[in-house]
Amino acid sequence: MQPKSFSIGIDIGGTNTAFGLVNRRGDILVQDRLRTQDYASPELFVQAIHKSLQPHIEQYGKDQINGIGAGAPIANHYTGEILMSANLLWKGAIPLQQLLHDAFDLPATITNDANATAIGEMTYGAAKGMRDFIIITLGTGVGSGFVANGQLIYGHDGFAGELGHTIAVRDGRLCGCGRRGCMETYASATGIVRTAMELLETHRDDPKPEQDDWLLKIYREGGEISSSGIYKAAVAGDPLAIEIFELTGKILGETLANAVAITSPEAIILFGGLAKAGDFILKPTKRHMEANLLSVYQNKIDIIPSGLSERDAAILGAAALAWDLSH
Amino acid sequence: MQPKSFSIGIDIGGTNTAFGLVNRRGDILVQDRLRTQDYASPELFVQAIHKSLQPHIEQYGKDQINGIGAGAPIANHYTGEILMSANLLWKGAIPLQQLLHDAFDLPATITNDANATAIGEMTYGAAKGMRDFIIITLGTGVGSGFVANGQLIYGHDGFAGELGHTIAVRDGRLCGCGRRGCMETYASATGIVRTAMELLETHRDDPKPEQDDWLLKIYREGGEISSSGIYKAAVAGDPLAIEIFELTGKILGETLANAVAITSPEAIILFGGLAKAGDFILKPTKRHMEANLLSVYQNKIDIIPSGLSERDAAILGAAALAWDLSH
Repeated sequence: MQPKSFSIGIDIGGTNTAFGLVNRRGDILVQDRLRTQDYASPELFVQAIHKSLQPHIEQYGKDQINGIGAGAPIANHYTGEILMSANLLWKGAIPLQQLLHDAFDLPATITNDANATAIGEMTYGAAKGMRDFIIITLGTGVGSGFVANGQLIYGHDGFAGELGHTIAVRDGRLCGCGRRGCMETYASATGIVRTAMELLETHRDDPKPEQDDWLLKIYREGGEISSSGIYKAAVAGDPLAIEIFELTGKILGETLANAVAITSPEAIILFGGLAKAGDFILKPTKRHMEANLLSVYQNKIDIIPSGLSERDAAILGAAALAWDLSH
Repeated sequence: MQPKSFSIGIDIGGTNTAFGLVNRRGDILVQDRLRTQDYASPELFVQAIHKSLQPHIEQYGKDQINGIGAGAPIANHYTGEILMSANLLWKGAIPLQQLLHDAFDLPATITNDANATAIGEMTYGAAKGMRDFIIITLGTGVGSGFVANGQLIYGHDGFAGELGHTIAVRDGRLCGCGRRGCMETYASATGIVRTAMELLETHRDDPKPEQDDWLLKIYREGGEISSSGIYKAAVAGDPLAIEIFELTGKILGETLANAVAITSPEAIILFGGLAKAGDFILKPTKRHMEANLLSVYQNKIDIIPSGLSERDAAILGAAALAWDLSH
């Protein structure tokens, strides 16, 4: 049978949902988005996506569409269900895969957003051709996807790849998951702000700052410290901002060193907001990872930024997931 | 083509090497052993194994033998080479796979001993039918093998699965690998003795021990503290021995909780000397693992002792590795 030319990728977030029609080269031919929270039920939500895509499905030919892939924060590849965050109208486990299949009359599959991104990187991005790699998504939280032997590790129950919830600091910072010291309380957009606040507080009473102490000035004046603000301060040469990235890279690098000893990847790909800080985060992460690696792994493993734009990655990854659907 | 009935498994240790002819049910039909260190070169060593097995190969029929699998402490599945410990006569990387192939004129493959045990458990032991599990070998050091999607994780370079060399305690005990805080400096036969010595030293000047303070008595009298001695003391009700297992299970359980967040296994199998302590090690390990798991993984993952006898496991695992060899 001739392979089909297109698949549909859906990236579901708590606030927004983006979706599109993708070809095998990774071009997004059609793209649309909607506000997840505008829909009173998952059925209405799926109907809205279908309504938006239907004319394009007719245009490109339904018989040329291989299937639908969807990524969502808490999604289980095996059960086909998603759990949305508590503040949404939708409650409990939602059989998203079944709803998509019913609405579109096409095969559907789902996974969590970090796993979708891993598949996107493997199919279209920085991990093209790699059989063993790790992707870390450094956003509000930290997601991760592990690929070994050319396959995504889903684990026995579909919940593998929660590196953000490994304990990086024993009895460390309180995490949203209820435990202490999770890596994501340090090495995420929110984690780096917590690090900044702690560091700035210890420097609050320093002699008046030099001209390049941007963050301390903002902090003393009661302004908001954000992860993008820390990045801008680092670019401007603020020594405290650079130290904040150093502390963040230390926790991330130490955590990655332990993960490397488990799956021995060819490369680690950093994705998401914090990864955009470039060398400010890549260099300390790499240095602390190397310092904590068993010698057999040293100087072998690249830490590289994502090869996909953040806007497109999740749609591409979700669509790539659908290439494996059989009929 | 009819599948072949037998394979050869070789378990190479620094001191002893055991090998045998195995059928598909996991019966070891012929078994022999030799002292690894008695041979001046790897060529002579391989010739000695061949000489021992040759009559049995003729008896069972060479055309019925699928191949040879070998496990060794530092072995690379991809390169076919082993590195023996520094105090052996053999130096550098030894092309064991090639040597075996040349001597026997049969397909050969190698892996490290923990990986061989993982394949043995999956083929014949406690992990039969499982697609996602972890095996931990608690011997002088700690080895580990990770299976995901039904396949052993070798990693990009063949060195995956070194959970014993993940950092469990930041700036902790000095490890033979040159780093500090590796899990195996706590949760191995040698690690538990270090824990015992530390704990006993802090109790040295306690009021004279009760009758069941076996370890403290031995320690004060300058006797040797061994892992089997700690086990015997625990069986006899020695509260310090039980505390030593508790501390050991804490480090092992915390490390396993982090590993679970990466591969989300169905079960964790404990193998080797320390695992023979049964509930003394299993119970604290399980309790500390559960206490450190993200909720999505809680109360799902069994920690179970190996289904294979320690004497046979490595031969069976190495032989099982050879079932996958194609011709």
